[in-house]
Amino acid sequence: MIRHLDPAQLSVLRQVGRGWARVSATPEAAREALPVDPNLGRFPTREELAPAGTGRVVEMPGLSGQIPAPDEAEGPWSTRWGLGLRRMLLGAPLKNTAITHESMRKAIALPVLSADALSSVAYGPEAMLTILVLAGAAGVTYSLPIAAVIVFMMLALGISYRQTIRAYPHGGGSYIVSSANLGRGPGLFSAAGLMIDYVLTVAVSISAGMAAMVAVFPGLHSAIVPIGVLVILLLLAGNLRGIRQAGLLFAMPTYAFMLAVFGVVVVGLIHPFGQAPSSAGQHSVTESVGLLLILRAFASGSTAMTGIEAISNAVPVFRSPAWRNARTTLTWMIGILICLFLGIMVLAHIVDVIPVAGETVLSQLARRSFGDGVLFWFTQIATAGVLMLAANTAYNDFPRVLFLMARDDQAPRIFLRFGDRLAFSNGIIVLSVAAAAVYIGFGGVTAALIPLYAVGVFLAFTLSQWGMVMHWWRRRESHWRKSLAFNAAGAVLSAVVLLIAAVTKFMAGAWVALVGIGLLVVTARLIRRHYQAVDKAVRLHPDAIELPVQPLPTPVGDPRVVSPPAGESEETPQDIQNFTVVGIPSIDLSSLRALAYAASLGQPVMALHISAGDEEAEQFRAYWGQWGNHVPLEVVVSPYRAIVAPMVRYLEALHRQNPNLTLTVVLPEIVARRRYRLLHSRTANRLRRALRPHPKIVITTIPFHVT
Amino acid sequence: MIRHLDPAQLSVLRQVGRGWARVSATPEAAREALPVDPNLGRFPTREELAPAGTGRVVEMPGLSGQIPAPDEAEGPWSTRWGLGLRRMLLGAPLKNTAITHESMRKAIALPVLSADALSSVAYGPEAMLTILVLAGAAGVTYSLPIAAVIVFMMLALGISYRQTIRAYPHGGGSYIVSSANLGRGPGLFSAAGLMIDYVLTVAVSISAGMAAMVAVFPGLHSAIVPIGVLVILLLLAGNLRGIRQAGLLFAMPTYAFMLAVFGVVVVGLIHPFGQAPSSAGQHSVTESVGLLLILRAFASGSTAMTGIEAISNAVPVFRSPAWRNARTTLTWMIGILICLFLGIMVLAHIVDVIPVAGETVLSQLARRSFGDGVLFWFTQIATAGVLMLAANTAYNDFPRVLFLMARDDQAPRIFLRFGDRLAFSNGIIVLSVAAAAVYIGFGGVTAALIPLYAVGVFLAFTLSQWGMVMHWWRRRESHWRKSLAFNAAGAVLSAVVLLIAAVTKFMAGAWVALVGIGLLVVTARLIRRHYQAVDKAVRLHPDAIELPVQPLPTPVGDPRVVSPPAGESEETPQDIQNFTVVGIPSIDLSSLRALAYAASLGQPVMALHISAGDEEAEQFRAYWGQWGNHVPLEVVVSPYRAIVAPMVRYLEALHRQNPNLTLTVVLPEIVARRRYRLLHSRTANRLRRALRPHPKIVITTIPFHVT
Repeated sequence: MIRHLDPAQLSVLRQVGRGWARVSATPEAAREALPVDPNLGRFPTREELAPAGTGRVVEMPGLSGQIPAPDEAEGPWSTRWGLGLRRMLLGAPLKNTAITHESMRKAIALPVLSADALSSVAYGPEAMLTILVLAGAAGVTYSLPIAAVIVFMMLALGISYRQTIRAYPHGGGSYIVSSANLGRGPGLFSAAGLMIDYVLTVAVSISAGMAAMVAVFPGLHSAIVPIGVLVILLLLAGNLRGIRQAGLLFAMPTYAFMLAVFGVVVVGLIHPFGQAPSSAGQHSVTESVGLLLILRAFASGSTAMTGIEAISNAVPVFRSPAWRNARTTLTWMIGILICLFLGIMVLAHIVDVIPVAGETVLSQLARRSFGDGVLFWFTQIATAGVLMLAANTAYNDFPRVLFLMARDDQAPRIFLRFGDRLAFSNGIIVLSVAAAAVYIGFGGVTAALIPLYAVGVFLAFTLSQWGMVMHWWRRRESHWRKSLAFNAAGAVLSAVVLLIAAVTKFMAGAWVALVGIGLLVVTARLIRRHYQAVDKAVRLHPDAIELPVQPLPTPVGDPRVVSPPAGESEETPQDIQNFTVVGIPSIDLSSLRALAYAASLGQPVMALHISAGDEEAEQFRAYWGQWGNHVPLEVVVSPYRAIVAPMVRYLEALHRQNPNLTLTVVLPEIVARRRYRLLHSRTANRLRRALRPHPKIVITTIPFHVT
Repeated sequence: MIRHLDPAQLSVLRQVGRGWARVSATPEAAREALPVDPNLGRFPTREELAPAGTGRVVEMPGLSGQIPAPDEAEGPWSTRWGLGLRRMLLGAPLKNTAITHESMRKAIALPVLSADALSSVAYGPEAMLTILVLAGAAGVTYSLPIAAVIVFMMLALGISYRQTIRAYPHGGGSYIVSSANLGRGPGLFSAAGLMIDYVLTVAVSISAGMAAMVAVFPGLHSAIVPIGVLVILLLLAGNLRGIRQAGLLFAMPTYAFMLAVFGVVVVGLIHPFGQAPSSAGQHSVTESVGLLLILRAFASGSTAMTGIEAISNAVPVFRSPAWRNARTTLTWMIGILICLFLGIMVLAHIVDVIPVAGETVLSQLARRSFGDGVLFWFTQIATAGVLMLAANTAYNDFPRVLFLMARDDQAPRIFLRFGDRLAFSNGIIVLSVAAAAVYIGFGGVTAALIPLYAVGVFLAFTLSQWGMVMHWWRRRESHWRKSLAFNAAGAVLSAVVLLIAAVTKFMAGAWVALVGIGLLVVTARLIRRHYQAVDKAVRLHPDAIELPVQPLPTPVGDPRVVSPPAGESEETPQDIQNFTVVGIPSIDLSSLRALAYAASLGQPVMALHISAGDEEAEQFRAYWGQWGNHVPLEVVVSPYRAIVAPMVRYLEALHRQNPNLTLTVVLPEIVARRRYRLLHSRTANRLRRALRPHPKIVITTIPFHVT
């Protein structure tokens, strides 16, 4: 993160340096003259940096060699009570050394990385049928053809992402691939689409998971919003703790879900004419079959494709040879996804299950296959489990996208920071707030959220695949033609889905996602523009500095004569004309300490007191005389207790007298325990805020500790 | 607010002053040597203090001569956008001169100051009947005897408060009277009771007002919580604007309400056998008549007495002779209150109206007297209006109690501050938040709030009346025996009501109010104890200082030799050993400016850079050399980007080397427009927070403005 200097900047730097008067004969002498020895060895050691706790964290894919380090405790947690709560919820801070590169076997990587994709079959088929059933039995007959198209899409995307894995063995997220091959703009759109998508992944997964549980416990129905929010809070706390998607615990829900759905399908097909579900034949026709309806159904059903990109993002977590193992796993995942999806669609078609209020399609099928017993419960709980896991995936991916954007100056730099549990706390918090807002706003209803979903994903898919096309075209490595063709097919198909989804579901909610993407892109551009403007402003450019080649002596004579502001430099000490004003609220130890500090700097100093009335002002001046009148005092009478406003006006007027002055305002500050903080005047903060627009005004508080 | 010094403190002050080395020959010479002329005349003028806007504000009773002045804009409003919104909602800032003493005619003062008391008849009778009806027709027969007792109480309290008015012509609020005559503890309990009461006045008045409107528009029923919150927000905005309870606009609702209730009663009594209300005879008996039930009914009915104290708080707003006019008005008010209360009780008894869900008793009576026409609507709207006005009364009284407590160090000093619309903004905001929380928590249901109410009021009544007894006993002015007797009667009766309310309604909710009062008292005591501890710590006491009588020369020789910490003084400049560390994130103009500032102070200075790796550290040192190595540099290598943690550890270790040093940490700070503030590193704030526990560490930021 060092700012590298080009020759022009170096020349400016040397020029500035020549303007400095030498204080000591040699740099070594200057160092010797310090009141302490600044060399404390290699400081701090890694152990000192974060002294407590242990833990194990998998290195995050796509960030190789760029993992930031844990920072100190901060924010609302920093009271002692808050710290206790924080430790209880989040655990002790982790050492840096806890960042290790852990590789995953395929048998673990498959369930962990597939949760998002596979869990989609819990809501995708249902979303499609919900649209088709609007046209009654005639509409539902289109379910299998549409499913066939979606399966074709899954295959095409799978093959397409196999190419990405080969080309980006260090992880090829959409933002990375689009930015690298298509440029900053497409990269931004890709990132915005992904971010919207991750928020919706959390909201949709939790709402679908709640629906699965409601099928078991119908009494939960009225409480899905508060329970869902609770789940988001759990995910928030768990991810702030730094839980990573690894290990058997995270593999189990996916395998359980796979097993359950296979069971539902196989048992259901063996007894295709078993007890018909109660809902069969209850079609109430409200629309006729038409192209628009079919396209809407397709767009809704294509939410079943979300999550396919996960493996290509995460290539480095595989055992060596990583990219080969990742490709194999991707193939498995696509195969399983297609089986589950097709199985559900075919079974639903044969037994004529349609979406009804209060019970999901998958739950109806499970009830029909297994009855109301243990197997039914197992299916529902596995479904809720895999959906939780899918939501958790977004907690890994969303902060990573923000990190990558922040690295490119396109997001606030606070997203570069690691919390003390080695997690991107700020991104995790932002995701939780956004997901909770969306979840509450749409009442936790999956069907209401579906129209927003998929737009962001397919935008990212399209740009990422198109970026791969450009990649192959430029590189022309071996097999580039085949890879380019596959990626081009993926790009075109994704674009078609994107178009269909955006147009057919525009009014139903897709516009919200599109507006969200647009706002994110515009914001990111504004952020980047601002960071660049700041970089330009602080850069060492020759125009910024007008310096004499030889150092001038410190100005003598009447200092009240204002030297011309043009050519005034602030980069050399002897050109800085210091003046210190000490604000004295009353005569006590804290004020005397502030006065002594200001005077000890050896610069011109005065004291300022705001008094409530003329009599009190006289009294204060008398005390001042008793003390010895060592510092010129000015008393401003401000009736009615106002402190900050008259101070600001006075300081502004003083500075107007001589704008070349660097005005240091010194204030005493009572430092008490945190719990008493609200009891003490925030004069310094308010003064700082009020004087913020003025250059050359420095505000310093001198702490006085009360124990 | 000047801190007065006793002779011992003055002697310490002189001793400290003798420790200072003389800088100039005379104070006049020192003043002449300043780079500016500190004398800016009487500054700022009143006009400068708050330059815009006009307005008229009635001086608040009980604060004569102590009105604080408007402060600057601040808080969440201080962005430009926020400022626009603030101006729209709250209006332009008011001049100080807008504080005028405006006196009210009795015909205006009566409705304005009686709104709280008179509006109580909108819920008091109903609250009593709600309890009695639990015992069916047998219970309801007790309504008139209980009403008679309450009327007797009203008379007694009225006479009692007439004594207070005479004794406290500048306003005799319960806090003032109890503190002055009974001491700090009773004063605190009185204030806590009042504060709880004002919160409940807002919540109960709004819920009762909503009930009145629901009778007209039954569709509102499901939305009473959001609409009620909206009303609280309106009161908040209106009171932040500085609306005062004066003028015809505020008089109208009360007169309209009086007129309406008289009409309802008179018409109802003329046609006592008109159309019976639908609810008559629907008693469903769940309890039997017993002493407890009757006492509970009495306690609930005594909520009709709330607000009686208003006039005695506000004596100074009356025209001269204020106390006489106030007494006359109080007599009128009590008379009208008794008429309205008795009228409603008698009519309800005759026509056998009992509380039903969805319609208030008053509304049933009005419907019976007037039908569903214009007069019925008028009654309901007048009821809602007077209840709004009653809620608004609490917005005047609650912040005043907090102000008085803060003046006595028993509440945070932020409640001493005036907003720029001459209103106690902080108190108004606290009241709104508390009232909204209570209102939402109890679902906006008056019946649920009633058990909490009255406990606080009658605690304050009791203490205030008892305080008056002590007042007469000590003063023994003319007629003191009669006054003492009246006040003693009031005190005893109030205490009885308090006891009955607290015991009979304890489980129903009174415990909440009692716990609230207890917490407030404990908090206030802790606050006072803290303020006193701070005052003691900063006081000029001889133990705090060990000074040589003659000033010592600045210590010479090897500064690294640590002088013994005992007897170390921080009150004289020559005893302060300064050392400045400049944190340099990268080599740019903002950093060079910070370096130049630090060097310009002429104290020992070093630079500290946190580097991400050894190579980058080498590069940074090379740049430093190019610049000229003017300041000793220390580079700390911190892998993984952490900045603040290694800085804190380094500075702590440095300070440990030589604890006598006063360490000034100088950091460059980018100052951009407010909207970009989140984009910039808060390193200084985080460092300040982390180093807060360490004495003798001063953090200074040097602003670099980017436009």
